[in-house]
Amino acid sequence: PISQDIDHILETQSALAIDLGGTNLRVAIICKRGNIEKRYIQANPKTFEARMQLILKMCKDAVRDADCLNCRILGVGVSTGGRVNPQEGVVLHSTKLIQDWSTVDLRTPISNALHLPVWVDNDGNCAALAEKKFGHGKGVESFVTIITGTGIGGGIVHENELVHGSTFCAAELGHIMVSLEGPECSCGSRGCIEAYASGLALQREARRLHNEDLLKVEGVDMKISEPITAAHLISAARLGNSKADAVLNKASKALGVGIINILHVVNPALVILSGILSSYYQAPVQQIISERALFSAQSVKVVTSDLEEPALLGAASMVLDYATRRVY
Amino acid sequence: PISQDIDHILETQSALAIDLGGTNLRVAIICKRGNIEKRYIQANPKTFEARMQLILKMCKDAVRDADCLNCRILGVGVSTGGRVNPQEGVVLHSTKLIQDWSTVDLRTPISNALHLPVWVDNDGNCAALAEKKFGHGKGVESFVTIITGTGIGGGIVHENELVHGSTFCAAELGHIMVSLEGPECSCGSRGCIEAYASGLALQREARRLHNEDLLKVEGVDMKISEPITAAHLISAARLGNSKADAVLNKASKALGVGIINILHVVNPALVILSGILSSYYQAPVQQIISERALFSAQSVKVVTSDLEEPALLGAASMVLDYATRRVY
Ligand SMILES: [Ca+2]
Ligand SMILES: [Ca+2]
Ligand SMILES: [Zn+2]
Ligand SMILES: [Zn+2]
Repeated sequence: PISQDIDHILETQSALAIDLGGTNLRVAIICKRGNIEKRYIQANPKTFEARMQLILKMCKDAVRDADCLNCRILGVGVSTGGRVNPQEGVVLHSTKLIQDWSTVDLRTPISNALHLPVWVDNDGNCAALAEKKFGHGKGVESFVTIITGTGIGGGIVHENELVHGSTFCAAELGHIMVSLEGPECSCGSRGCIEAYASGLALQREARRLHNEDLLKVEGVDMKISEPITAAHLISAARLGNSKADAVLNKASKALGVGIINILHVVNPALVILSGILSSYYQAPVQQIISERALFSAQSVKVVTSDLEEPALLGAASMVLDYATRRVY
Repeated sequence: PISQDIDHILETQSALAIDLGGTNLRVAIICKRGNIEKRYIQANPKTFEARMQLILKMCKDAVRDADCLNCRILGVGVSTGGRVNPQEGVVLHSTKLIQDWSTVDLRTPISNALHLPVWVDNDGNCAALAEKKFGHGKGVESFVTIITGTGIGGGIVHENELVHGSTFCAAELGHIMVSLEGPECSCGSRGCIEAYASGLALQREARRLHNEDLLKVEGVDMKISEPITAAHLISAARLGNSKADAVLNKASKALGVGIINILHVVNPALVILSGILSSYYQAPVQQIISERALFSAQSVKVVTSDLEEPALLGAASMVLDYATRRVY
């Protein structure tokens, strides 16, 4: 019957999603329901030319594979670090976490190479879109999401819409400052929550302790092999290393105070943490909010994302929502 | 002619505006064009009962005077410190800057006593409404205003509307924290910009210097008579007192970093400073933004309000806009 055919066609609608992060370049084929059908991962090249070349190559491979997987690609969604003009599909400016990545028109070359429509937004904004379509943000009118990876990104949904800001610089939540001095940040300032609580910041502290031979735990075989990461810091702290614990406490405090600042600006109904460190940060952040937020903001709920890949899913959601809005 | 009569009637439309601050209780009769026809000022009483009694008395006096001034009062607008539910006309919660001022229904008693409709909002939000109707915010889709008085209040206009937040705690800009530790704040937390840069914070520092005999300037007769205020600090700094200068530098830095945090959350097109210290803070805040904000946010303009009484004018604007919206 025809209705079944239409259902089947709708089912096969898929998106190509790209996530350009501080460490990796990832591409995925994502179907309408949010399942990741296939994924590709490479180290993110350090130069503009190599990066663009790799993006196009990975996309072409993915489009070819999509055909075999019976996924009909409606368009390409790109999540990237840095400030993005989503109307133009242009990366305006990035911190040094992604080098050689300012004033980059992503839409034109990708669209020309693949003959598909292209949407681009900032990684934190994409994570917010993912939460809204597939995650804890479903049906929540106002929420904020904070994604901790190499850096810290964020997205804000106010009255069911992303807040982009007058110069596309809203929700740059990693660069909320919680100290007048504090550690140097990738953005050139100091005291940003990214400089205290990101994966890179914790790795920096873990290495510092390791170099001073302070990351070990008395009586425990830590089996530390390079490269040292935030994970070593967390396990050292759990095993009773007070230096590691102090670093993580400070990171949690910085993140918590930064999140309170967001509460005192837009006062969302929900805070969603995502990224590898989110399950670690959830409880201390909720605690700090109860201690230091204004009474009227203390009741906000802090949850950990259920989504495996918020940035990729958000990139896909732009395609799935906007392409079909246009088609039907 | 009839059209002239209508013009005349429209001209006489006025509002009763009330401003409940940390120091004073003020009432004004404000006409449609934003002129303050008459004003009344008293110290804000310390208890709920005395305060409510004084509000009602001052309002009744003002209504009587309005009649003589040929001002037709359409309603009452109240600007108050603390978190406000404007739909209900209720003060939800205040910091200790206004004592005994939580869960207070302002609409019912004022409306009952005067037989007029009553609108209530937070002082910072009222200041934003005033800028939107009468000041630099006219025609600006997104802006933020920061009002420095005894404390620090704020208001955010996003897509031409005030941002109230999910629990009416948005735009509590005085309680943006710029330090993990820092000076104690009236809200119970530490490191809030209010605790660094408000009139009360500067007065505290001025008194501290004065008590240590450090507020004087070598070779200059400072003529310091109690009470010591922020003004003494500013003149000592201008006359070359480096201790006073350091306090003001830190206050400016804290305010500037706090404002950058707002830029990185909502990225407004304009920042409007108001209150007695605004002309002092404007230049250093603009400077700190150029040094520490993300590139895409650095170009935001920081201006000083032209309005004499933003909180009172904003309180009046609720009446003038909402009452006439209902009538016509
Ligand atoms: Ca963002
Ligand atoms: Ca406010
Ligand atoms: Zn930063
Ligand atoms: Zn505070």
